[in-house]
Amino acid sequence: MDLKKKNIKLTLEYDGSNYSGWQVQSNAKTVQGELYKACEKIFNQEIKMQGASRTDAGVHAKGYVANILVNTNIPMKKIPLALNSKLETSIRVLKAEEVFEEFHARYHAKRKTYVYQIFNRDSSSPFHKRVWHVPKNLNLENMKKASEYLIGTHDFTSFKAIEKIEKNTTRTIFELNIEKSEHLIKMTITGNAFLYNMVRIIAGTLVDVGLGKKKPEDVEKILKEKNRLKAGKTAPAEGLTLYKIEY
Amino acid sequence: MDLKKKNIKLTLEYDGSNYSGWQVQSNAKTVQGELYKACEKIFNQEIKMQGASRTDAGVHAKGYVANILVNTNIPMKKIPLALNSKLETSIRVLKAEEVFEEFHARYHAKRKTYVYQIFNRDSSSPFHKRVWHVPKNLNLENMKKASEYLIGTHDFTSFKAIEKIEKNTTRTIFELNIEKSEHLIKMTITGNAFLYNMVRIIAGTLVDVGLGKKKPEDVEKILKEKNRLKAGKTAPAEGLTLYKIEY
Repeated sequence: MDLKKKNIKLTLEYDGSNYSGWQVQSNAKTVQGELYKACEKIFNQEIKMQGASRTDAGVHAKGYVANILVNTNIPMKKIPLALNSKLETSIRVLKAEEVFEEFHARYHAKRKTYVYQIFNRDSSSPFHKRVWHVPKNLNLENMKKASEYLIGTHDFTSFKAIEKIEKNTTRTIFELNIEKSEHLIKMTITGNAFLYNMVRIIAGTLVDVGLGKKKPEDVEKILKEKNRLKAGKTAPAEGLTLYKIEY
Repeated sequence: MDLKKKNIKLTLEYDGSNYSGWQVQSNAKTVQGELYKACEKIFNQEIKMQGASRTDAGVHAKGYVANILVNTNIPMKKIPLALNSKLETSIRVLKAEEVFEEFHARYHAKRKTYVYQIFNRDSSSPFHKRVWHVPKNLNLENMKKASEYLIGTHDFTSFKAIEKIEKNTTRTIFELNIEKSEHLIKMTITGNAFLYNMVRIIAGTLVDVGLGKKKPEDVEKILKEKNRLKAGKTAPAEGLTLYKIEY
């Protein structure tokens, strides 16, 4: 059988609760580590894999993208089923597509969308697990007002994990929507790229506004001060889902 | 302290995945059993408890109602928090209200609403756990047509677990809606009461229609034949949620 080297774009979903993030690690269970193992069983070879983003421990993904370089004649339509048969049910491969040779899941990403979920009522929910449970009542209108200051191109130094050094701290947020259905608040944020912990620090800051600890217009000041200590705390990982990556 | 005997209506939610149903059992973990234990810790007495319905093993509830008879001066507002502090997080008490002495969670129920959830795509979901995963594509329009034959007052013998003997097999279905959002199909059914396994057999039959194994109009015949063997299989417990009980 004549095998051709292919670059395959995989779209996948995972519940990150029981993984130490995406990135492969020698001594911890990760999503990429599990996907490597499944690929080696299906393709019977060592493969190269590139993920779109290093999601943190506990973070989930709905439209995660990775690309693999592999010699195979398995039809693309059959690859998801084959890989899923070797993966734990908390990771599902939804689609496999052959892409051009140079396609790179990380470098070619143009827009990323994250969803941060907050469960807002006295008691936690037996049903909603991928949320931050905030028992005190949040003022949604103020959170929406505050979010408007973040849309656009800004230096997001105040919304970046303090220990991470980045040359360029300017990012563009195209959209930031906050909606509530029953007790579930969904913050959907689309940007060209995000700094480390940026979405979680934005969520933590908007919750401070919702609780009345900060005013909506404080967010404008926080951006200008370029000081992580002025923003709210980093919201918990379990509320965050990498929702979509556009190329 | 002068304690007064009160009849308290509790509204609760639970994820039934890890319980052997509602009803207390000597050698299995049940929702009622866990609630009894929490009540005894909080009220320091043996209490009487009546649940609205004996949900099966693996079935969930969102608006479950139970009433307890107890001597207490704890304000109603504080009871949910107190009980929740003693319960596993898969059971949450949402509300406690003092009701009239004769109120009985089961006998006084006038309408019950169940939701049956089907996850309809090739691969299962890492996120939706309280669903029946049906990989083959379902024809929603035919399922909706079929469901119309069930609305109204009928003898539901064909939709009742065969081993259960009931004097009266006539029930009224007030509403039956089927809607789809992304890959999730929700069947919402409201009736005056339901026979044993009735909602799950209805779900199983409508899925047969969705798969093309039965025609929508077959449902009318199945009702008339009063024969359990003519209806579809009993859909899995994990897709079922007792959603609301009206008094």
